Amino acid sequence: MSVAHDTNAEPKQLEILERLQSLCGENDLPDLEAKLADLAAFVGSDLAPIDEALRAVSGERAAHQGAAHLLSLGGKRLRPICVALAAKLGRGFDERALSLAVAVELVHAATLLHDDVIDMADTRRGKPTARAIWGNSVSIYAGDWLLIEALRRVSAVGIPDLLTTLFDVIDEMIVSESIQLESRGKLDVDRDRWHRVAEGKTAALFRYGMRAGGRVAGLSDEEIAALEAYGSHLGFAFQAVDDVLDFGGDPERTGKALFTDLREGKATYPLILAVEREPSAAALLRELVDASEEELAAGMGARYSEVLALLERTQALEDARAFAFEQADRAIAALGRWPKGPAIDALTTVARAAVARRA
Amino acid sequence: MSVAHDTNAEPKQLEILERLQSLCGENDLPDLEAKLADLAAFVGSDLAPIDEALRAVSGERAAHQGAAHLLSLGGKRLRPICVALAAKLGRGFDERALSLAVAVELVHAATLLHDDVIDMADTRRGKPTARAIWGNSVSIYAGDWLLIEALRRVSAVGIPDLLTTLFDVIDEMIVSESIQLESRGKLDVDRDRWHRVAEGKTAALFRYGMRAGGRVAGLSDEEIAALEAYGSHLGFAFQAVDDVLDFGGDPERTGKALFTDLREGKATYPLILAVEREPSAAALLRELVDASEEELAAGMGARYSEVLALLERTQALEDARAFAFEQADRAIAALGRWPKGPAIDALTTVARAAVARRA
Repeated sequence: MSVAHDTNAEPKQLEILERLQSLCGENDLPDLEAKLADLAAFVGSDLAPIDEALRAVSGERAAHQGAAHLLSLGGKRLRPICVALAAKLGRGFDERALSLAVAVELVHAATLLHDDVIDMADTRRGKPTARAIWGNSVSIYAGDWLLIEALRRVSAVGIPDLLTTLFDVIDEMIVSESIQLESRGKLDVDRDRWHRVAEGKTAALFRYGMRAGGRVAGLSDEEIAALEAYGSHLGFAFQAVDDVLDFGGDPERTGKALFTDLREGKATYPLILAVEREPSAAALLRELVDASEEELAAGMGARYSEVLALLERTQALEDARAFAFEQADRAIAALGRWPKGPAIDALTTVARAAVARRA
Repeated sequence: MSVAHDTNAEPKQLEILERLQSLCGENDLPDLEAKLADLAAFVGSDLAPIDEALRAVSGERAAHQGAAHLLSLGGKRLRPICVALAAKLGRGFDERALSLAVAVELVHAATLLHDDVIDMADTRRGKPTARAIWGNSVSIYAGDWLLIEALRRVSAVGIPDLLTTLFDVIDEMIVSESIQLESRGKLDVDRDRWHRVAEGKTAALFRYGMRAGGRVAGLSDEEIAALEAYGSHLGFAFQAVDDVLDFGGDPERTGKALFTDLREGKATYPLILAVEREPSAAALLRELVDASEEELAAGMGARYSEVLALLERTQALEDARAFAFEQADRAIAALGRWPKGPAIDALTTVARAAVARRA
C-alpha cells in the first residue's frame, strides 16, 4: 500500500481542514485559520491512511462493534497527527509510522471506552456512547480489544523500546486515572495532584506519540527528548483547555454538557485556581457536588451561575487559559533546535490550535 | 535469584499439596491423593517463586490494591503449573519460564477482574470481589493494569512469537467473552457455540501456557504442538467440570453459589445435553432465567429442584463429566511421544485432578 499517495487525499484534506478549523473560535489568533490550512495541506495525505486504518478496525462481535462505534465518532486525531509530524522531521511518514499513529489513537480510544463506563457517560462527542447502546460489558471488552490491537501494532513495528515505553505509558495512564478516581467527589484543590493526573492521563500519550514518530524516523536521542518535551507540554495545555471548556464550552461543539467534570467532583484547573484565591468558595462547590439530581432540577442548578461568577471574580478561567498558552509556548520552544520548515510550522500550529480551541 | 532452590520450598510444598488435594472428593480415583503428593513434590519448589512473584504484584493506588486483592484470593494456579511442567520437559524451569508462568496467571486474573464487573459478581472464591470492595471502576483499571503487567513480562522474556501468540490468545478470549455476552439470557443450546466459547475463554490460555513453557525451554515445534494439544483438551475438560459444578458443587468449597451460570442465562454443557435430550425442558429453564429475584424468593426458587431432576433424568451431569474425562484422556494421549517420567506423570495427574475436582 502506498501511504503517501492516496488517491483520496484531496477531499480528505478538506475534511481534515474543516475538522481542525471547527476547533477555533472567530476571535482567535488572526492567522490561525490560514495556518490550519497549511497544516491540513501538509498532513492531509498522511491522515487519509490513518483514518482508513481506523475505519478498518472492525469485527463481527459486539466488542468489535463497540470499538468501531467509538472510532467512528471522529475526534481531532491530534495524537496521530503528532506521530506523523514527528516522523516528518526524520525519514518521513512511512508504513511503520502509520502503524504507530494508528496505535496511539487506539490506545486513546481504549481508555475512552473504559472511562465512559467509569463515568457512566451516555454521550460522547454529541453521540450515544458504546455503553449507552450496547451496555457496560461491551464497552469494557471493546476497550480491552483496542488495547491489544494497539500493542500488537507497536510490537509488529519491531522497535523494542517503543513497546516497553508504551507499557510504561499505559501504566502511567492507569495510575493517573486511579488517583483521579480516589479523589473523585472530594474536590481537593491540589495543584500538584492536578499536574500528576494530567501528566499521566493526557501528557504521557502525546509525549509517546512524539517519541514514536521521531524514533521510527531515525531521529537521535537528543532530538527525541526535545520532541517528548513538546508532547508533554502540549498534553498539559490540552488538559487545561479541556478543564476550561467544562465551564465555557459550547455543548453543541464540544459534544459534552457544561459542568460535567464539576458534577463528577473532579478538581479541574480553573476550580483549583478559584478556591486557592477564594477558599470560602469550597462550600458552594461541595454543595453542588453533593447535590442529588432532584435537588439540581428543583432549582439548585441555578447555583451554577454562582460558580461562573466565582470563576469571573477570581479570573480563574483566564488564568487557566493563560497557563495553557504558557504550556503551548514551552512546547513550541522545545522545538528550537530545528530550523523553520513545514513540519516545525505544523507542530507550532498544532500547539496554537490546541489552546485556542473552543471544542 | 535462585528459582529452583527456594529456602521456603518445604512448607510451600505442603501448602500446594493441600490446595491441590482440597480439589478432590473422597471417592475419586483411588490413587489420586498419592499422585497429587508426587505432583506437589515435583513442582512445589517452582510454585514457591511463582506465588512470591504474584504476591509482589502491588502498588499504592486503588487499581493496584484491587489487583493484589484478586491475586490474594489464591486459586489453583493450574495455568502456571502448566508452564512449569512444560518447561521441565525441556531445559527446565528457569527465570524466563518463571516470568511466563506469572504472566499467564496475570492474564487470567485480569480477565476475572473484568468478568466480575460484567457479571456484577459480589463474591469470588468465597470472598468479596474487588468490585464489591472498591467499586467497578477499580476492578476495570485493576484488570487493565494486570494485562499490561502480563504483557510486559512476556515481552521482557524476549521470544517475539510468544508475545504475538499472547496477543492472539487475548483476542480469542475477548471474542469468546463477547459471544457469551451476546447469547447471555438466551439459553441457546448450541454445542458448537459451547465449544467455540470454551475454546477462547478457557482452552486458549491453557494452550498458551503449555506453548510458553515448551518454547522457553527449547522444545521443538512438533513437541510444542503436542503440548498445545494437551493444554487445549485440558481447558475443555476444565470448563466442562466448571459447568457441572454449577449444579453439583459445594458452594463452601467452590466459593460460588449453585445455579449462578443458569441465573446468568449461560448455556452450560449439562444444560445443552439436557435440552437436546428433552427439548420441552427449555420452557422451565426460560422461566428460571427470566424470573425476578422477588419471584425466586417467593417460592419459584423451588423449581431449581426440577432442574436437578431434569439433569438426573437426562443423565446430563454424568455425561458432561464423561465428556470432561474424555477430554482429559485426549490431553494425556497428546503426551504419548514422551517416555514416562516425573514431568509426564505430573501432567497426567493435573489432567486427572482437573476432572475429578469438586471445587
